[in-house]
Amino acid sequence: MFKIAVMGCGVVGSGVADILLEKKEELSTRFKDEVALGAILDIRDFTGTPYEAYTTGNADEIFANPDIKLVVMTIGGLDLPYQLSKRALESGRHVVTSNKEVVAAYGKELTKLAFDNGVQFLYEASAGGGIPVIRPMNICLSSNDIYEIQGILNGTTNYILTKMKEDKMSFADALALAQKKGFAEANPTADVDGHDACRKIAILSSIAYGAFVDYKDVPCKGIRDVSYEDLALADKAGFAIKLIGSSKNTKQGVVISVEPLLLDKSHMLSGVSSVFNSVLVKGTYTGDVMFYGKGAGKLATASAVMGDIIEILCGTNPKVLPGYAENDAKVISDSEGMSRYYIRIKINGDVESTEVRQVAKSIFGEEGKIILPDNEAPSYMAVVTGYVSEKNLDAKKVELEKTLSVTCENIIRVEG
Amino acid sequence: MFKIAVMGCGVVGSGVADILLEKKEELSTRFKDEVALGAILDIRDFTGTPYEAYTTGNADEIFANPDIKLVVMTIGGLDLPYQLSKRALESGRHVVTSNKEVVAAYGKELTKLAFDNGVQFLYEASAGGGIPVIRPMNICLSSNDIYEIQGILNGTTNYILTKMKEDKMSFADALALAQKKGFAEANPTADVDGHDACRKIAILSSIAYGAFVDYKDVPCKGIRDVSYEDLALADKAGFAIKLIGSSKNTKQGVVISVEPLLLDKSHMLSGVSSVFNSVLVKGTYTGDVMFYGKGAGKLATASAVMGDIIEILCGTNPKVLPGYAENDAKVISDSEGMSRYYIRIKINGDVESTEVRQVAKSIFGEEGKIILPDNEAPSYMAVVTGYVSEKNLDAKKVELEKTLSVTCENIIRVEG
Repeated sequence: MFKIAVMGCGVVGSGVADILLEKKEELSTRFKDEVALGAILDIRDFTGTPYEAYTTGNADEIFANPDIKLVVMTIGGLDLPYQLSKRALESGRHVVTSNKEVVAAYGKELTKLAFDNGVQFLYEASAGGGIPVIRPMNICLSSNDIYEIQGILNGTTNYILTKMKEDKMSFADALALAQKKGFAEANPTADVDGHDACRKIAILSSIAYGAFVDYKDVPCKGIRDVSYEDLALADKAGFAIKLIGSSKNTKQGVVISVEPLLLDKSHMLSGVSSVFNSVLVKGTYTGDVMFYGKGAGKLATASAVMGDIIEILCGTNPKVLPGYAENDAKVISDSEGMSRYYIRIKINGDVESTEVRQVAKSIFGEEGKIILPDNEAPSYMAVVTGYVSEKNLDAKKVELEKTLSVTCENIIRVEG
Repeated sequence: MFKIAVMGCGVVGSGVADILLEKKEELSTRFKDEVALGAILDIRDFTGTPYEAYTTGNADEIFANPDIKLVVMTIGGLDLPYQLSKRALESGRHVVTSNKEVVAAYGKELTKLAFDNGVQFLYEASAGGGIPVIRPMNICLSSNDIYEIQGILNGTTNYILTKMKEDKMSFADALALAQKKGFAEANPTADVDGHDACRKIAILSSIAYGAFVDYKDVPCKGIRDVSYEDLALADKAGFAIKLIGSSKNTKQGVVISVEPLLLDKSHMLSGVSSVFNSVLVKGTYTGDVMFYGKGAGKLATASAVMGDIIEILCGTNPKVLPGYAENDAKVISDSEGMSRYYIRIKINGDVESTEVRQVAKSIFGEEGKIILPDNEAPSYMAVVTGYVSEKNLDAKKVELEKTLSVTCENIIRVEG
């Protein structure tokens, strides 16, 4: 008897409940045990739905049932799901969650708590939605030393950037469309300012590098400043612009960020469009490995939750605590590092763009690549610089703005 | 004490031995047991190498050692690795292999034999090299009903097609280059005629659909007929040409093939170039999921073998036989199915290409899209048809060749 309680019957929770109801027989046959939905914790009224018979508003009832061996935590927010997860683990029940806030904030503590209680705390659905990425890193790639991760980790922002590019839309219009379609929330901050991606890259990096990365240490920049003009100019120069969560494991510490980046079109992440997510993992033995799929959505996310449940049913048994539950990562900044940069320059009325081109060329050197829009007498242009340090870039920007009556309106780093 | 014997110390085997030697301490700590290379079976002389102390030419010695709990089977060919795998499983040892010939031919039998002996037979490295795909399908996605797989499963052919396209090379020249670089063998048949991809799509489909697909039932066409002109014309029309192993699970049976296909450039597999491989899996809950990485190479493939070893060390324990070890798949042909096709037409001297265009248009209708090369007075052109059945396509081809003095030189199906 292996009964599963779903706590929080919202989008993801109801998806898990649906799959458990649909696949009860198949799972029970596969694992030679009665594997079934045992209870749903939710204060809403589910009268007349398939959930009705399972629902209770009282968590104590669930914790009093010895047949419940696993809790699916799909309550949103932070404190309540954390407290209930803790209680479940302490009572000797496995916990599987899609709640990235809880994992990013308490993943270290809850993983240790699970280990001490001889159960598991798994969260495949918390970073990458329906994409299998945590398990492949934990098992398939785990003989490798993983040294770098890059990911498109937020479907909302990827949808907005895709729409802006394809339909020549402004950020505001694309955001409004995403909200209308249900891909973005009324308050879109968590997505468009990069906070969601930030938690996910912290979670993935913690696992990959065996040291807990605090998401609050991750420098984070969203996509509000990216314009259609940026996407079009970058495209002309052979780049896509994507919101990328990335991290590198160096001897000095972990370099990590969430920011829009120009990706060369040969970069595998550059072709990931709309609500799809993708994670590129670099390992010492395996080189580049990429995982791609739906980063959100009821059934895709529920499918990842089911993967965790199935792993537990397969009987895997970690013999030692994972590194991130014991060690903290040192997050360092890479301000000395060299990068190329894309700079969009607004040309004010009294400057001929040919003059701007000459000055830009003299400041950014032969490596600086000028990109002009298709229209005649353009009021803006862009430069993709050669490799410069952040400090050096600032100096060049000041020099440009001092020499000419122009404004550097947007600066985006180029990947690689 | 968990000692591992590597049978066959060639490219992949030596990679596994290297990783086991390098990671001995890390693995032993992680699994609270002495996890180490125990023996190497190979008749070659490894004097002066790190393998020397482990090597024996006598399999009996290895089977007499009770500390050897797992055999890594990296001997090439079919009969010897099959016999040794069988013997290892019967002696209660796990077997992990990268040998796709053995898995495609005997995977069903060996999986059952492993189950009956309470051990595991795993083969992540046999389909997709270093890419984690079998384990994610088995665990992460396994609540889904997987209904379709498409993959670039052979690095050699993908390298050849990439080089032909990028450097305007003929098939023969690109093949010669691949041979020079060590990406293709002196006898390239297994790769360029699709036999390698054929075994891999059969292996992946067996797992995904829970029924054993015999690779000998898979219709298989290689890339020998693809020319640079095809790649350039397809590119002009917005397509890439890739060698695709694909299968669909239908109510009537499994539709499966290996063939070059035109992929729309928005298709995620269209951007996979050079020696990289990629597998797209479609599941009922999760939708499209894609895995990408190196399909071959010493350490990448060894990394996949290590993933299987780590899974076994994690203690997973299948409670029932997987479906493909009990059931055979019914492979059916889809000759009634509708597809679009690319047809390259050679225009013989006495036909004006404008006339060919008109006739082609009248035969293939408004949906037929004509693609002309950039050169003036071209001696060839192509048509991408609308949806037609294979039978109907043949009729149209005959009509075209009868009406005009032209030859349909190459026909390639369009994906989707």
